[in-house]
Amino acid sequence: MIDVNKVRIVEDFPEKGIKFYDITTILNDPETFDGIFQTLVAAARQLNPEVIVGLEARGFYFAPALALELKIPFAPIRKKGKLPYKTYSESYALEYGTAQIEIHQDAMPFGKRVLILDDILATGGTASAAARLVENFKPISVNYLFFMELTSLAGRKKLGNAPIRTLVSI
Amino acid sequence: MIDVNKVRIVEDFPEKGIKFYDITTILNDPETFDGIFQTLVAAARQLNPEVIVGLEARGFYFAPALALELKIPFAPIRKKGKLPYKTYSESYALEYGTAQIEIHQDAMPFGKRVLILDDILATGGTASAAARLVENFKPISVNYLFFMELTSLAGRKKLGNAPIRTLVSI
Repeated sequence: MIDVNKVRIVEDFPEKGIKFYDITTILNDPETFDGIFQTLVAAARQLNPEVIVGLEARGFYFAPALALELKIPFAPIRKKGKLPYKTYSESYALEYGTAQIEIHQDAMPFGKRVLILDDILATGGTASAAARLVENFKPISVNYLFFMELTSLAGRKKLGNAPIRTLVSI
Repeated sequence: MIDVNKVRIVEDFPEKGIKFYDITTILNDPETFDGIFQTLVAAARQLNPEVIVGLEARGFYFAPALALELKIPFAPIRKKGKLPYKTYSESYALEYGTAQIEIHQDAMPFGKRVLILDDILATGGTASAAARLVENFKPISVNYLFFMELTSLAGRKKLGNAPIRTLVSI
């Protein structure tokens, strides 16, 4: 059972009116962090992925450790301009304007079962851009795994019919 | 033994004349990634840390997994404006201008043995700024652990007398 009270709510971050779910309070509590991590591992094993894709930066709190645990490749998605080699790039909408994320063109083999992992499913904008990046590698399946889901923002709608697992819904 | 040829060298990134060591080629090779991770774990155990500090973003490839493995707190250092709660902040020099990194004011307990982990020791600018952030918590010791060290950039000089462990020197 995951104690959601361990997540700190910060009001008005990054801007007025936004309620920010801060998971750093989990990271510095080893028992809670390990409990959540083991639950993510169990959820991931059921999906039997061949590649873990993680999103900069908070997805990196969990995704590389998960790939190490499952002994499968880890493919990072980063903000534009951070990856040094040839990349694919996708845009997603922000409240004002757009942002871009990228993946290396040799980040993973073709035709695999891919699991996209991030900390929080909010509007689904970055997760759906991540899925479009993954499509370049012709995956045989794409699943999503999130620690938390903010259901009021309806992020699932942006992710189509792909299976989505979340540990905590708020 | 770590096969340094698994690290990809990208010329002229992020700008002309810079030789960039790209470790994403390790992340998508599970055997190599696990081998490096286990070597980091063994090096860390010898130092007997009570807190792992990791630097955004590439430090997060290793640091949260290491904290999970050692069952100790993980404290992230992030770029300015990314951490939502009260922070300490430090500047470090870039080739042109400066940048800032931050740590939450409740990121870790006071008076602990702290291990700062990052992927590469280059000029030492971010690592020494990280150490200044950690000083706010009156640690009884601060050690550094890096996957790679670029010795020509003399980053060690910026880190004073603190013990530094690196797996690979180039």
